[in-house]
Amino acid sequence: MPNSHLIEKELIKVNNLIKNNIIEEETISNLYKYIFKTNGKQLRAKLCLISSSKDRRLGKKRIKLAAIIELLHTATLVHDDVVDESPTRRGIKSVNNIWSNSHGVLIGDYIYSKAFILMVELGNAHILSELSKATNDISKGELIQLDAIDNKKISLEKLEAISYFKTARLFEAAAKCGALLIQPDNKYQKDISTCAKNLGVVFQIKDDLLDYSQDESVTGKPVLQDLREGKITYPFFFAYQNANKKEKKQLELLLGKKKLNQKKVLKLINTLDGIKETENLAMKYIKRSTKSALSLGNKNIRKEMLNLLDAALHRKK
Amino acid sequence: MPNSHLIEKELIKVNNLIKNNIIEEETISNLYKYIFKTNGKQLRAKLCLISSSKDRRLGKKRIKLAAIIELLHTATLVHDDVVDESPTRRGIKSVNNIWSNSHGVLIGDYIYSKAFILMVELGNAHILSELSKATNDISKGELIQLDAIDNKKISLEKLEAISYFKTARLFEAAAKCGALLIQPDNKYQKDISTCAKNLGVVFQIKDDLLDYSQDESVTGKPVLQDLREGKITYPFFFAYQNANKKEKKQLELLLGKKKLNQKKVLKLINTLDGIKETENLAMKYIKRSTKSALSLGNKNIRKEMLNLLDAALHRKK
Repeated sequence: MPNSHLIEKELIKVNNLIKNNIIEEETISNLYKYIFKTNGKQLRAKLCLISSSKDRRLGKKRIKLAAIIELLHTATLVHDDVVDESPTRRGIKSVNNIWSNSHGVLIGDYIYSKAFILMVELGNAHILSELSKATNDISKGELIQLDAIDNKKISLEKLEAISYFKTARLFEAAAKCGALLIQPDNKYQKDISTCAKNLGVVFQIKDDLLDYSQDESVTGKPVLQDLREGKITYPFFFAYQNANKKEKKQLELLLGKKKLNQKKVLKLINTLDGIKETENLAMKYIKRSTKSALSLGNKNIRKEMLNLLDAALHRKK
Repeated sequence: MPNSHLIEKELIKVNNLIKNNIIEEETISNLYKYIFKTNGKQLRAKLCLISSSKDRRLGKKRIKLAAIIELLHTATLVHDDVVDESPTRRGIKSVNNIWSNSHGVLIGDYIYSKAFILMVELGNAHILSELSKATNDISKGELIQLDAIDNKKISLEKLEAISYFKTARLFEAAAKCGALLIQPDNKYQKDISTCAKNLGVVFQIKDDLLDYSQDESVTGKPVLQDLREGKITYPFFFAYQNANKKEKKQLELLLGKKKLNQKKVLKLINTLDGIKETENLAMKYIKRSTKSALSLGNKNIRKEMLNLLDAALHRKK
C-alpha cells in the first residue's frame, strides 16, 4: 500500500481519537461535538504522521501526537473566529455565531488544555517543550497581526514574521515532534522541520492570494475579507509598494471598508503587481521547502512532503 | 523570622520573576506589563509557597512554581473579563476595556502558554499532569456556569460543582503541586490539597456573599453584579428555595435586570434567608478545611493554612 493511503487510514484513527473523547457535561459535549463535526484539511496532523512514519511500530503514540496537534490547531481557530468575528468556519456557522463569544473563548481554552493533558500523557519532554513554545508563538503572531491592522507602513519582514508565527510555526512543530517521537538523528529532524516551516509559509501566502481571487464560488469564503477587516496581507502590501501617490490614496480608502467594488479592487491590485509579486514570494518559499524535502533520505517521506507542498500551492480553497 | 514574613518575601521574588519576563514585541510587552502592574491577593501563589515551605532549599523551583500558578490564574481572569464583559479588574480598567476583546483573548492565550513553557522547564511530570488537568477543569467550570445563566432550576450540587471547578480547583492544584515539588508523603499531599480545595470553596462563597453586601465603597466592585448578569449564586439560590409563589416571581424578575433597587433586593434576599443559609454553607466548608489543616503535622504550615482560611473568610473585598 502506498504511503499516502496509510496516512489517510491513520488520519481516520486520529479523528476517532478526537471524537471519542467522552465529556460528561452536556453543554461542553455539544460544543465539542459541533466543533469536530467537520474536518479541515488536517495538514498539520498529516505532517506529524508523515514525519514519524519511519517507525510505524509507534502506532498509538503517533496517532495521539497527531490528535494533539489537531486539537491545538482547532483551539486557535475557535479563538480566531472570536477575534475576527467570523460567522462561519469550515462551511458551517462558527461557535461565536451559534452560541456566543464567551462560549468561543471558553471552549477554546477547554480544547487547549485538553491537548496539554494528552501531551503530558505522551511523556516526551522534548515534544512538550516544542509544543508549549509553538502555542506561545501562535498567540504572539496573532497579537502582532492584530496590532498591524490598518498599518500601511508595515514592512515585508513583519508580514513574513506574522506568517511564520501564526501559521508556519505549528507546521514546523508538527513535523519536528513527529521526528522527535521516533528519536531520529538531528539532520532528519532539522530537514523535515525546515521543509514543513517553509511549506507553512507557502500555505499562508496561498491563503492570502485566495482572498484576492475571483472564485468565491470555489473557495466558499467571501472574497477580500482581509481587506475589509483592515488586514494588510501580501497582495495589498506589494500593490501599495508599487503605487504612485494617487493610487496609494485609493488603496488607503479601501482598507477596512465593508462595501467594496470587488472587480475594481482586484483590477487595481493586479495592475500594481500585487498578485504577481506575492506569487514570486511564494516561489521563494517553495524553493526553500523543496530544497529541504530533497535532502530527506527516506524516499517515501520525501515524496509525501513534496505532495503536501504541491497540494498547499495548487489548492483552490 | 516567622513563616508568614518569609512567604511575603518569597512573593516579591515571584512577582519579580513574572515581571522581569522580557518580551521583544512592543504590543505584547505593553499588554503584559499592564496586566501585571497590579497584584491581586495572590492566594494561590501563597498556597503553593506554603505547601512547599517544608524544604526551602528548593528556593528557585518554588518561586517558579508559584509564578506559574499566578500566570495560569491571571490568564483565566483576562479571559473571564472578556466573557463577563467586565470594564475593570483589580481596580483598573480591564484589557478588553482599554484594548479590545480580541486583545483579551489573545494575551490570555499568550499567558497560558507562557505558563506551560515554564511548567515544562520545571521538569516534574506529576506537576505537569496536575496543572494541565486543573486548567481544563477551570474552563469546564466556566462553561457550566455560562450554561447555568438564568437557570432557576439549578441544583445546589451544580452550584457547588461550579465553585469547585472554576475556583477551588486551582487552590487545590496550587497546594498539591507545592507538595509534589518537595516529594512528600502521600498523607501530607492529600491533607494539604483537601484543606486548600475547601478553602477555595469558602473563598468563592465569600465572593458570592460580597456581591450581596451593602459595602460597595469597601469592595470597590458594583453590588449585585452576578444578579445583573443573570448568574444564580448561593444567596439567590437559597432565597429562591425558601420563596413562596409570589416571591419566586419577584426574584425571577430581578434575574438579568440591569437596573435594580439595591436596598429592596438585599432586603428580599435577606428576608428569605439567602444570606444566612449561604453563611451556613460556608461554615460547612470551613469545618472541612479546618479539619484537614489540623491534621497537618508541621506546626508552621498548619498555622499558615488556618491564617489563609481566616483571611478568605473575613475579607471585606
